[in-house]
Formats: sequence, structure tokens, C-alpha cells
Amino acid sequence: MTTVVNGTFTDTYAAVLQFYAKQVQLLDSGRFEEYAATFTADGEFQHTPGLPAARTTAGIIAELNSFNTRFDNDPVQRRHWFNMINLTERTDGAIDASFYALVLTTRPGVKEPLVGPSCFVNDVLVFEDGELRNRSRKVGHDQLF
Amino acid sequence: MTTVVNGTFTDTYAAVLQFYAKQVQLLDSGRFEEYAATFTADGEFQHTPGLPAARTTAGIIAELNSFNTRFDNDPVQRRHWFNMINLTERTDGAIDASFYALVLTTRPGVKEPLVGPSCFVNDVLVFEDGELRNRSRKVGHDQLF
Amino acid sequence: MTTVVNGTFTDTYAAVLQFYAKQVQLLDSGRFEEYAATFTADGEFQHTPGLPAARTTAGIIAELNSFNTRFDNDPVQRRHWFNMINLTERTDGAIDASFYALVLTTRPGVKEPLVGPSCFVNDVLVFEDGELRNRSRKVGHDQLF
Repeated sequence: MTTVVNGTFTDTYAAVLQFYAKQVQLLDSGRFEEYAATFTADGEFQHTPGLPAARTTAGIIAELNSFNTRFDNDPVQRRHWFNMINLTERTDGAIDASFYALVLTTRPGVKEPLVGPSCFVNDVLVFEDGELRNRSRKVGHDQLF
Repeated sequence: MTTVVNGTFTDTYAAVLQFYAKQVQLLDSGRFEEYAATFTADGEFQHTPGLPAARTTAGIIAELNSFNTRFDNDPVQRRHWFNMINLTERTDGAIDASFYALVLTTRPGVKEPLVGPSCFVNDVLVFEDGELRNRSRKVGHDQLF
Repeated sequence: MTTVVNGTFTDTYAAVLQFYAKQVQLLDSGRFEEYAATFTADGEFQHTPGLPAARTTAGIIAELNSFNTRFDNDPVQRRHWFNMINLTERTDGAIDASFYALVLTTRPGVKEPLVGPSCFVNDVLVFEDGELRNRSRKVGHDQLF
């Protein structure tokens, strides 16, 4: 079901940077259906410590809608920054990606964003029909170490 | 007038990262003439919400000199961070780049920088004689959403 | 002694991003011996303004152990972020890398990390048996400009 693309490591690295850029821009503009579509159909998304992972496209959309009700009366522009992306290619073509993530939250009229949480993320990525997808994402929060 | 370089997407992605690194290091060290030279001769640079874009090399230098008078009696080290860079190649060889930007401002003797504004930037890049240049840059500020 | 790898600039750029990702993840998880092993045997590491550089693998490990005693009774999760990485390849195969670095420090139970210092780093990198290593690293702190 998963198409393995045998590019070079360099090609994979650039593809992952581009994939994450598009993915977070979808998330931060509230396009949750499109964000969920960057996961495989049976994808797993665990972003809140202590809570079970959301599973499947519908499950991820429901989780994001639910999570974001906290901003219903508190409009903010969030930005997810990913950095220091460490990739390991598995022999089956899947990619382990571990990286730092930081959330910046800007309120209307306030130039200085709220900074945090700082996170450590473990993704498993796969190529499907030549396109990268998250098979899973697990977000660890630094304040809970 | 514009030379199209038909590299791979991977080559383009690395070239853009390198281009931005050099460009912001020029900006943050006050080398405004060299920063302006990273734009095309008729380049457009809009960085302050509500104000018209600066145009042409001379116009961009003038705008940066004018903007930075605010630091004349308030020495700071500013750092522009770009991240989550999303590239789309046009059929004519130009590149649309949209990305997150964050300004960090450090004052002498103060270890913790001022963080912000958080921005969303839309660039149009072109290759001229094999070198990347900004044809335009438009900076949106997150606190004005 | 140093094996020069003649990849493309693009390959080098991706290799450096990957190298830095692994390197800082070692540093931030307190694996100082493995961090020191990312330097050449005679490598030089200068990270505290005004103090002499640590030299050799053993010297770098000693310096990191000494520096980190400050956290013995103050557990924190630090994260080093590198960005805006500007690479210049020397004719002998060494690579000059200059980039921005930011330290984020999270304390248990506190969602918002301490931000800073903001730094400017100059590295000299070499390939040894196909693997990148730091021949030197000099960290400048923005608050001391």
C-alpha cells in the first residue's frame, strides 16, 4: 500500500522540510481537514500529554476541532516551528523523524508572542504515491520531563 | 532578463536556505546596500504594515536607513529567523516562497532577547545569472490578523 | 587525515542540517561524550565568552561536565536551536558555517521556556571518513556586542 520512493538522503531531507512547511501552515491557518490529510488514512496523532492518540483521518479532525474550541472566544494566531530535524531511513522506506518544536501564540495587537511549549516530536513518515505522509506523530512536552 | 536555472526541487530548496541565511546575516549586521542587492533592480520590499512597499535598489536602501534610525540611540543586535519555508516553482522559473519569520532583539548585557514580532512572509524569488534574488517580499505581522 | 567528500553543495547542505540535528540532540540530552565525538580528535570548542576554548575530545567532555554542574540542583531541559546556516566550502574541503543559535530552557511544570541567549556561531567543519565533524566552534553572544 505504501510506495517506497528511493531518492537520495538529500532529496528526502528537502522533501521533509517542504512537507513540514506545508503541513504546519495548514495547521496554523485552521485548515484541519487538510492537515489531517497529511496523515495516512490510519494515521496516529498524539499531541496532548496523558491523553490517548487520535486515530484515522476523521479522528484527527475531531481532535483538532475539539482542542481548538479553547480559542473560540480568544482569537490567536499560532505558529508551529519545527527545527533540528533528525532523519533515519528504515529499510522498508519509512522514515523516523525526531525534532524540536516550539509554539508561538500571538494575540491581536500584541507584538510579542507567547513562547511555548517547547516540545520534542517523534514522527514516522512514509511515502504514499510519491507524497510524504505521517503514519504517526507523538509530541512530548519539555515541561513534563 | 531573468535566467531560469532548471535544477531539481532539492537543489532549489538548498539554494533558498543558503540565500536566506546570507541575506538575513547582511540585514542583521546593518549592511543594507548588500541586503538591497539581494533584490532584483526593480525589486519590491514591503515590511511595515500599512505603509507602501519600497521599490528599486535605491528605494530599499533608503527605507532600511530610515527604519533603522530608531536604533540610533538604542543599540541592539537584531536577528531575523526564517522557518517553515514552503516553496512553489512557477512554470516561468520564478519561485513563490511563504514562510514564518521571527525577530529577536538583544540589548547590551541582557541575555534574554525581546521576542517578536512573529510574521508571515510571501516572497517571489527569481534566478538572475544563476543567483537567487527577491523580486518581491511582503511581510505580514501576526498581531494584525 | 581528513577525507574530502566531493558531493554537491546541495548534498553538503542537507548533510550539515542532519549533522547539527543529531549533534544538538546529543548535547541537550546530556550525552556529552557523544557530543564531543562529533568534533575531530584535536577539535576546539569555545562557547563561553572570555574563557579559552576547550581542546581535544577529553577537554570538551571535561568542559561540558564542568559547565553543566550549574544544573545539578536545578533540573532543566535545554534546547539548542540553530538556524540561518550560511555555508562556504573551502578549496581543501573544509566548510565554514556561520549561523544563528538560540537556547531555550524549560523548567519542570513551566510551559513557557526561558529564551536566550541569542548567539552567532562560527564553525569549521570537515569530513572524516565520510562523516562530518567540527574542527572548531566559536560561539559569540549577542548581548556582548
